[in-house]
Amino acid sequence: MLEPKYKRELPPFTRAEFDGRAERARRLMARAKLDGMLLTSMVNQEYLAGFQCQFPVSSPSRPWYFYFPRTGAPVGVVPAVGENAWRTSSWVEEVRTWPSPRPENEGLDILRDLIAGTRRRYGRIGVEMGPETRLGMPVEDLLRLRDMIRPHEMVDCEPVMRELRFIKSKAEIARVRRACRIACAAFDLLPDFVESGDSEKVIMRKMKTRCTALGADDTSYMMTRTGPQGLPSWVAGPYDHVPRKGDVLAIDTGCKYDGYSSDLNRNFSFGKPSDAVRRAHDKLWRATRAGIEAAVPGATAEQVFLAQAAILNEGGSADGFKRMGRFGHGLGKLLTEPPSNKLGDKTKLRPGMVLTVEPGLLMDNGMMVAHEENLAITEDGNRLLTMRAPREIPTIRV
Amino acid sequence: MLEPKYKRELPPFTRAEFDGRAERARRLMARAKLDGMLLTSMVNQEYLAGFQCQFPVSSPSRPWYFYFPRTGAPVGVVPAVGENAWRTSSWVEEVRTWPSPRPENEGLDILRDLIAGTRRRYGRIGVEMGPETRLGMPVEDLLRLRDMIRPHEMVDCEPVMRELRFIKSKAEIARVRRACRIACAAFDLLPDFVESGDSEKVIMRKMKTRCTALGADDTSYMMTRTGPQGLPSWVAGPYDHVPRKGDVLAIDTGCKYDGYSSDLNRNFSFGKPSDAVRRAHDKLWRATRAGIEAAVPGATAEQVFLAQAAILNEGGSADGFKRMGRFGHGLGKLLTEPPSNKLGDKTKLRPGMVLTVEPGLLMDNGMMVAHEENLAITEDGNRLLTMRAPREIPTIRV
Repeated sequence: MLEPKYKRELPPFTRAEFDGRAERARRLMARAKLDGMLLTSMVNQEYLAGFQCQFPVSSPSRPWYFYFPRTGAPVGVVPAVGENAWRTSSWVEEVRTWPSPRPENEGLDILRDLIAGTRRRYGRIGVEMGPETRLGMPVEDLLRLRDMIRPHEMVDCEPVMRELRFIKSKAEIARVRRACRIACAAFDLLPDFVESGDSEKVIMRKMKTRCTALGADDTSYMMTRTGPQGLPSWVAGPYDHVPRKGDVLAIDTGCKYDGYSSDLNRNFSFGKPSDAVRRAHDKLWRATRAGIEAAVPGATAEQVFLAQAAILNEGGSADGFKRMGRFGHGLGKLLTEPPSNKLGDKTKLRPGMVLTVEPGLLMDNGMMVAHEENLAITEDGNRLLTMRAPREIPTIRV
Repeated sequence: MLEPKYKRELPPFTRAEFDGRAERARRLMARAKLDGMLLTSMVNQEYLAGFQCQFPVSSPSRPWYFYFPRTGAPVGVVPAVGENAWRTSSWVEEVRTWPSPRPENEGLDILRDLIAGTRRRYGRIGVEMGPETRLGMPVEDLLRLRDMIRPHEMVDCEPVMRELRFIKSKAEIARVRRACRIACAAFDLLPDFVESGDSEKVIMRKMKTRCTALGADDTSYMMTRTGPQGLPSWVAGPYDHVPRKGDVLAIDTGCKYDGYSSDLNRNFSFGKPSDAVRRAHDKLWRATRAGIEAAVPGATAEQVFLAQAAILNEGGSADGFKRMGRFGHGLGKLLTEPPSNKLGDKTKLRPGMVLTVEPGLLMDNGMMVAHEENLAITEDGNRLLTMRAPREIPTIRV
């Protein structure tokens, strides 16, 4: 079981898929009045250029750029060390390089020339600057570049990239689904491999070996936390803590497969669960069901939240929301993407969107319990991508 | 072997260690004329506040901040979902939270109030903006905040954080060493578990399961590439490619243990290596030895480069440098940190610095071969943290 014999990969994205993405990008750019986009995040370079390289995310020593004009040929602008990685993985034929690291000029002159050579219609160049973005280059260099490209104006292109990535293709959804199924298979076996005396860190490593053996490319997010009859809170751990009888173990994980992520969480009880834990688990299971039923085309992210909250409000506290800030979110290349299932998020669900449903419950003793499932919106409802969690909390023998 | 029974963790960082870091930070801030630093990257929040949380790196939906004034109490400013993670892991007692995601105001008002309440001496607040930094919040929000904190000026604090993190404590070096030893142990066993027919992706997953079973917390960087008598280039892969007899396999990995990274690479030959590969491997081994011998207190990063280049220049091409841009670099919490072993980098090596030595060779057929070892500078020379690669390239039976 622990040996990754897993060899049947999903077929690679077709050239037609990338052409379709580029075509949609150009339409959205025209609507947003952009002459070009300078993409610095790996996730958007992967999405639009098909570039695949683990290195930029782990090493901030060199920036990596993808310049995508609204008309004309796109260009990869990467450190010389990455030229072959670009040519091997991307459909984008033009690549320019510079000898990096070179802090005094990390390819900025190349970018300036490309932007100066862009057909000028709107005078606006998009850069990832808005909500939920992270810049893939130093801020100082971005501000220098902003001056270097005048009279072109630098504006946010987050809305374009968000809209572009909202609707997933079948091939994308297949990747999220595989990432989900890998984690689900590992969760299914968990009571057989977690032992009394394992610390949170050891449990995390055991889950990571299983997920990798089952085909995950990356398991870096594996939140592993235990606490008395629930968790002190969400997204913490693992620490060196060793769980005791009666504790709840929660793992929230985002396994990755071929550049796409799952995001699901499961709970386990060390020994027999208390009545309070059993009731909480059942309530969350029902809230999740309500959220799944509400996630249909035309509904809003807010409605998916409200459906879950209605169940949690039965007899009291939907206070988990105050801690978590939302009851699920978008999912795809990243563990978390827009929208947010929360009050005020009126994003309309459309076929091809991928969503998590994630209610959280604050128990009387102040502890948290949460659940999470992943689904894809379809023409007539949705398709669950995870294997549904059992209604009763599974136990680990201690 | 594949089951992570690994339970003996290194003792946690002491409070004295964090007090020492904070004290040095304050001295460096006075020298740089900073009244405060707003740290948005997880790596600097971990380093200075001791905050531990996997979530922010995987999920860009919410920003996480650490405000460190030169005088007065530091404050964690984190989404409500992360309050407990902060309290459990950090020595910093004051925490402020807001209900996130809230794109219209992601904690900016809290930051404005904290900065307004800072004792004003220089009127300058540091933010990570310079070389090799990545901002942990959207750029648009940073620019808004810059206006909100006037008359305080926003300036780069990269030089302060770089100097602060340059000199590693014994406890830090112990973590890098463990991360190195985990990868080395897995490399040592590699010829026994890689089989004919394994694709690059399968080989990567096999290495990841081993490293995790041996105690790695994270293995996200595992560059795995094969090519005929060398690699087409560096930092690419894994792809679906299945190596053939005579191919070289190179893995460059940065296993993480308790927040610290190793960064080493090893080569293997599928079947008997060609004479060209054998000679290249031997030359790199000798270049590495020369680099290690040159890495002593008082020497510069440039000198460590030159020592390696002198060996590679024997009889021809040190052209690997043109592709790689440097022959090694700093190492610590990140896979790559300053300085760069390259022409012009006059950074003086001091005891406590951790460095990689990484010569790369461009072969006659255009293929690359590289090596990498990690060491810590000591009072009287250095201490190797990796197990030295064998001088002869190991073979995998095919």
